[in-house]
Amino acid sequence: MKIAVDGMGGDYAPEDVVTACVNGSREYGVEIALVGPQERMEAELAKHDLSGTKIEIVHAAQYLVEGENPAYALRSKRDASIVIATKLVRDGKADAIISAGPTGGVMAAALYFLGTVEGMSRPVVGGPFLGFAPKTIMMDLGSNVDCQPYQLVDFAIVGAVYAEKLLGIKNPTVALLSVGAEEGKGNEQVKETYKLLKESGLNFIGNVEGYDIPTGKANVVICDGFVGNVIVKFTEMLGQTIADWLAAELKGKLAEAEITDMVGRLVLATNLADLGGGGPLWAVNGIVCVTHGRSRAPELAKTIGQAKAAVEEDLVGALTRALAAARGRSGESDS
Amino acid sequence: MKIAVDGMGGDYAPEDVVTACVNGSREYGVEIALVGPQERMEAELAKHDLSGTKIEIVHAAQYLVEGENPAYALRSKRDASIVIATKLVRDGKADAIISAGPTGGVMAAALYFLGTVEGMSRPVVGGPFLGFAPKTIMMDLGSNVDCQPYQLVDFAIVGAVYAEKLLGIKNPTVALLSVGAEEGKGNEQVKETYKLLKESGLNFIGNVEGYDIPTGKANVVICDGFVGNVIVKFTEMLGQTIADWLAAELKGKLAEAEITDMVGRLVLATNLADLGGGGPLWAVNGIVCVTHGRSRAPELAKTIGQAKAAVEEDLVGALTRALAAARGRSGESDS
Repeated sequence: MKIAVDGMGGDYAPEDVVTACVNGSREYGVEIALVGPQERMEAELAKHDLSGTKIEIVHAAQYLVEGENPAYALRSKRDASIVIATKLVRDGKADAIISAGPTGGVMAAALYFLGTVEGMSRPVVGGPFLGFAPKTIMMDLGSNVDCQPYQLVDFAIVGAVYAEKLLGIKNPTVALLSVGAEEGKGNEQVKETYKLLKESGLNFIGNVEGYDIPTGKANVVICDGFVGNVIVKFTEMLGQTIADWLAAELKGKLAEAEITDMVGRLVLATNLADLGGGGPLWAVNGIVCVTHGRSRAPELAKTIGQAKAAVEEDLVGALTRALAAARGRSGESDS
Repeated sequence: MKIAVDGMGGDYAPEDVVTACVNGSREYGVEIALVGPQERMEAELAKHDLSGTKIEIVHAAQYLVEGENPAYALRSKRDASIVIATKLVRDGKADAIISAGPTGGVMAAALYFLGTVEGMSRPVVGGPFLGFAPKTIMMDLGSNVDCQPYQLVDFAIVGAVYAEKLLGIKNPTVALLSVGAEEGKGNEQVKETYKLLKESGLNFIGNVEGYDIPTGKANVVICDGFVGNVIVKFTEMLGQTIADWLAAELKGKLAEAEITDMVGRLVLATNLADLGGGGPLWAVNGIVCVTHGRSRAPELAKTIGQAKAAVEEDLVGALTRALAAARGRSGESDS
């Protein structure tokens, strides 16, 4: 198995990325295609003991930087490390990609060179977003702001595959986010989706309310990207606000280090970007793991392990089959 | 001015309600119509010094209890205290109603006997819902789950009137909840509403994101009732979850009483039902203040003061005029 790593992605590239490649290759027994400027990559690798590793450098003269317009950056930097890395997967020369570079750019490269899995028109963003409910995936959190009911069912299928393959949950429970528990509660979109989910073959447990997200009542909570995006951003700032309040409340009552630790854990538990770091992009036709820009070497190495697991679990194949099976079922019920 | 008080509403009725009537009448200089079973009301009043108060008992043989179906309860209990109290306002015999009884029943009585203000087809639920952003009203939080853009504009008008009249904010800022700050970000509903709000004459500051709710970026944040309901319920349980985590973290590090106090304040700051207690129902054609069932005498007395302020501010008139003015404007632009 070969993992393509964006050698220039992230705040601590290339140093921490290369360290992660060395340690990840050794620990997980995978080959690494380290993509970046040949000389810089060589210079970084020269700092390490490479015994027990299999790392080849794939030259890329350019790289993306934070703050660029993703589409423009991809057009203007055809030799960017993320472009070359993504093409390795497209061309069957690598099995997965890892990047701590700008998420928009990684996503754009993935969509352009790999596309989405059959039956999904757009990518989906999702994952466990609350540290208090680590076995609850919520989706879509991203770009699908006007959804048809069948799209919400697709999200549910994607979520169930990810919960099973990546969180190790057998027969994950799936629920629809609404304003009341009973069937018939909700807006038109939810009411229609409820009917489809009942027939979906998923382990659908009905509607959940806002109350039920932090308690982890369902493994997969489905909503459209408008609702999901608002909630995730709201949660992040509410967590930060409560953390600031807490730090002020505890000042002088506990040791500074204790306060910093508690507050830090609270911020982490309410921050999707931190919690979700390292997971694959959902519904992309290939395994692309984006970690946040602040990732250090240990986290990046762990992401190599996650990418390996995703390849071994044949995540993309499992997703494609699940979506095709659902189409088959809905095709039958239509006839 | 006369305030009708539901003598049998709330967990501590009639004792605390009657105490609140005595103290509220004296403190705010208002007449009270105390609505409830004659003998029980008399017995409670007999416990108090009534000097400087003006309280008359209006007999009501029945009352609602928590957990009843509101519509059924209203049909079956035609002499319920909330029914009699609401009719006093309808008939011009009182200026406002206060009840700590079941919210659904109070709302149903208000809609049935008073209706909504001209131009609003359904009631709206809103208010400051985060203790961290006390000058931010969010609405709708309730029953309007499928909204047309013009309805969201109506909510904005209602929110602006309430922010001005009840929170004392001159020319309150109004924002639309979306997934990005720029015009054009959001779902179809939001994009259409944005255009209308620009022309509304309100102090519209554009879109806000989930991040901007806890920071209090706008005085009035508009969303449909689906999004609002999910967020408010989610916030309540997330606040409780963080409070539980905090209590466990601090155990043994701070005094029990200190922990209880901090945790209690956190729960309060994230709980609409507690924070919003005492505010008038929005868009009802009359002043109806619902406080939560756990309200004790001091809070109930304070609600009498809020009802008085709402009457003096002519809240219903102000709202009716603002909605009519908006209709006029949109009528002009249509022609």
